[in-house]
Amino acid sequence: MRKGRMKVLVVGASGALGRAVTAALNERGHDVLEASRSSKHFVDLTKPSTIDELFKAVGTVDAVASAAGVTPFLPFAELTEEHFQAGINDKLLGQVELVRRGLPHVRDRGSFTLVSGVVATDPIITGVVASLVNGGLDAFVRAAAIEMPRGVRINAVSPTALEEAWDVYAPYFPGHRPVPAAEAGRAYVKSIDGAQTGQTYRVGY
Amino acid sequence: MRKGRMKVLVVGASGALGRAVTAALNERGHDVLEASRSSKHFVDLTKPSTIDELFKAVGTVDAVASAAGVTPFLPFAELTEEHFQAGINDKLLGQVELVRRGLPHVRDRGSFTLVSGVVATDPIITGVVASLVNGGLDAFVRAAAIEMPRGVRINAVSPTALEEAWDVYAPYFPGHRPVPAAEAGRAYVKSIDGAQTGQTYRVGY
Repeated sequence: MRKGRMKVLVVGASGALGRAVTAALNERGHDVLEASRSSKHFVDLTKPSTIDELFKAVGTVDAVASAAGVTPFLPFAELTEEHFQAGINDKLLGQVELVRRGLPHVRDRGSFTLVSGVVATDPIITGVVASLVNGGLDAFVRAAAIEMPRGVRINAVSPTALEEAWDVYAPYFPGHRPVPAAEAGRAYVKSIDGAQTGQTYRVGY
Repeated sequence: MRKGRMKVLVVGASGALGRAVTAALNERGHDVLEASRSSKHFVDLTKPSTIDELFKAVGTVDAVASAAGVTPFLPFAELTEEHFQAGINDKLLGQVELVRRGLPHVRDRGSFTLVSGVVATDPIITGVVASLVNGGLDAFVRAAAIEMPRGVRINAVSPTALEEAWDVYAPYFPGHRPVPAAEAGRAYVKSIDGAQTGQTYRVGY
């Protein structure tokens, strides 16, 4: 862990979660660089070459915090091979490439924090692709943690559905209690300012 | 669950695990149809159209038992995007497609049993792709179970390294105790002749 003010790259900064992560990191006094398809720094995780360009633009950072990635939500009977591949390419392999390509640009004892999600362990109808992707991410983080060089750490934050998106998600999450994005933002601070590695921080469940 | 003698399709039948699964099912009096790249019935999970051809050849079955799928084992620093995609296409999406394409050919109250692995939760150096793939499979099974139609069930068997392959795997699994493939074979019987769904059966750990 690097003490004091850190330079943190937030990927997926323009979404509800990314904004909460940025706010939580700003509150801690960190220097936040915002990246997304619509932020100051452009990145599209489904186009890995844009990850290389992003790090060329921002240089070395202390931490990378990802709040990026989407997966299709459809009944299992309607899912095609392409839906699985799309979710995998976006939220799963997109974040894996963020780590793989970003690693040389993260300082010694820096960190990666990825976003996973509740359905990895608590599935919902229409959520098969999301479950597969999030389960893969949680396992990736556990495994990559034991091979990170130079004391670099890696964790995942796994929130349940966000209050900020509850108008969209409520029908898919019967009986679930949504969580404010700010709660998930705090879990990113735990990962970045703390010293743990290989963890999945569950938020709101 | 369908009582008595069942028609079970074993995919990946020619490997150490597949042979043990076939033996365990034969011992239970089931009618086993063996499929793999080198068995009587040809299938290559990385070529999904061969799954369709397989079910055209074998017709309706009571259960599908998969012991198929490989992933690259390499130090994280040597892994490329292509290694991740290769492991995903083979063991992860290959088995997902086996379920998706096989489902119409599995009888009411039939079952799928997939193969996952210990590194989903207990990672080893060089095992990042395998961890991601197996974690994704465990979550897929949990999620798909709640959307299977007609009482069809789905579970995963997650063995640690097999005794039969220990000469190859021992250097990668320091401190692990290998398990006889026959133990894993029993877990397939538990899945197929039992009534549980959405489970990952850990074998040998």
